Amino acid sequence: MNLPRHVRLVEVGPRDGLQNEKQPISVADKVRLVDDLSAAGVEYVEVGSFVSPKWVPQMAGSAEVFAQIQQKPGVTYAALTPNMQGFEAAMLAGVKEVAVFAAASEAFSQKNINCSISESLQRFVPVMDAAREQGVRVRGYVSCVLGCPYEGEVPAQQVAAVARELFEMGCYEISLGDTIGTGTAGKTRALFETVGRDIPRDKLAGHFHDTYGQALANIYASLLEGIHVFDSSVAGLGGCPYAKGASGNVASEDVLYLLDGLGIHTGIELAALVQAGERICQVLGRDNGSRVARAWRGA
Amino acid sequence: MNLPRHVRLVEVGPRDGLQNEKQPISVADKVRLVDDLSAAGVEYVEVGSFVSPKWVPQMAGSAEVFAQIQQKPGVTYAALTPNMQGFEAAMLAGVKEVAVFAAASEAFSQKNINCSISESLQRFVPVMDAAREQGVRVRGYVSCVLGCPYEGEVPAQQVAAVARELFEMGCYEISLGDTIGTGTAGKTRALFETVGRDIPRDKLAGHFHDTYGQALANIYASLLEGIHVFDSSVAGLGGCPYAKGASGNVASEDVLYLLDGLGIHTGIELAALVQAGERICQVLGRDNGSRVARAWRGA
Repeated sequence: MNLPRHVRLVEVGPRDGLQNEKQPISVADKVRLVDDLSAAGVEYVEVGSFVSPKWVPQMAGSAEVFAQIQQKPGVTYAALTPNMQGFEAAMLAGVKEVAVFAAASEAFSQKNINCSISESLQRFVPVMDAAREQGVRVRGYVSCVLGCPYEGEVPAQQVAAVARELFEMGCYEISLGDTIGTGTAGKTRALFETVGRDIPRDKLAGHFHDTYGQALANIYASLLEGIHVFDSSVAGLGGCPYAKGASGNVASEDVLYLLDGLGIHTGIELAALVQAGERICQVLGRDNGSRVARAWRGA
Repeated sequence: MNLPRHVRLVEVGPRDGLQNEKQPISVADKVRLVDDLSAAGVEYVEVGSFVSPKWVPQMAGSAEVFAQIQQKPGVTYAALTPNMQGFEAAMLAGVKEVAVFAAASEAFSQKNINCSISESLQRFVPVMDAAREQGVRVRGYVSCVLGCPYEGEVPAQQVAAVARELFEMGCYEISLGDTIGTGTAGKTRALFETVGRDIPRDKLAGHFHDTYGQALANIYASLLEGIHVFDSSVAGLGGCPYAKGASGNVASEDVLYLLDGLGIHTGIELAALVQAGERICQVLGRDNGSRVARAWRGA
């Protein structure tokens, strides 16, 4: 067992999480969440998304959020910028790191963003060029890596091809997302083995949803494959585990509990992270998706 | 990775599960649950417990349940028999396999059954003797193996000592229970490594609670240690994941989803198991603790 000594958790709650919660919340509440997370020791926060508030009202005010958060030295504050318009808005807001995304499934790409995978990658070329010019790092997400709601199984080779394209376009890290949560531990290992043939493993991250309860087993399996960056969402924001059609982002608290138990350093203090999650759940008026948070409450 | 080809799931829902639900249910509903489980392909069901209904009203009528279930060839139907009185009642009910238990923590043993670990083991001697005479197999449970609510950490050596005593007394299999769910993957592996020095690994089973969301990661870690028997509870009976003081038995459906994904044979059909869990949840008027069941409902 050669587990990494340090793991970087990419906190996606304020973006991927809140974007998938029904109710938009105020800029002040978003700022508080981001500041709570960095105060807990989170090294990387995906703060918001620069997209039309007409389409994604939950992400309105991302520029104001960036302006108002207390930027802590050593912490990366990133934004999702699906196109040049978003990228330019992010630059105006002083954003230093951005993210782009593509699907590993053709059917999902068509249904979700109305174009083929290859077209979606082409759309990112100007963003990648501009980012390079301005010295802005770009992280790449690949979705549907262990299953697609329309296609079912997605071949690992197909995931590898999309990941490689994003990597070759200049993404410094590729996050492989089991965005419907159907993956299991063995398939997770096989996926990293396949994708890892083209991209060094320290440039890969795991992004797991807990829809079928498999996320922590998949993260443990990924650790055994040498992966040391994982996306997670405080309080499991973005997927209410009790609701219909739950998307089920894995809760950061539960991932941290696993990592703490394995003696893997993250720099994050669990009690403070749980507190941050409890607070945002109160704002949203929803139950906490973290089992650790619920167990602590019951204890 | 040398994963086992077949895993035996010991379904503890009708006993460990229902015993920890507030509301006692009818004999007819218990019979239906057990029959649903065996129809789904479950090989081993812990049907009930022979204890005083004054202390454990949820387990009243276990003899009637044994009399009324449809005993399927090849399926083991077991009962918990904490003392000779219980054992004799179980024999009268025609039970062919029983289980006994001890804690790995002195403080827990004292608080839970009001005697030391060693005294509790002594009490089982007549049960073990009688079982041997009658050709009845005895399974042993050890609780608090990865933590105790009173003592905190429990040394693996202490777990190994209790497990060894039960094994030497004649238990054919020892189930190691993380009954408060605080264990994580690395500690799980270390535990099986320590206990496995005294007892062959194919005589050990894993019993995990999902209180902190770690159960499936712990089961995957156990599989990597060559463990191929796991206790689980349909619908997560016995621990409501949303309630205070949740005990949190891992849901059989979620374990089966993991095993199916790993290509490990169990003989159980997931859809039928989910159905059995949904039905008993309706009887109890509680939400389903299985994420797979909830995801399927949402889909």
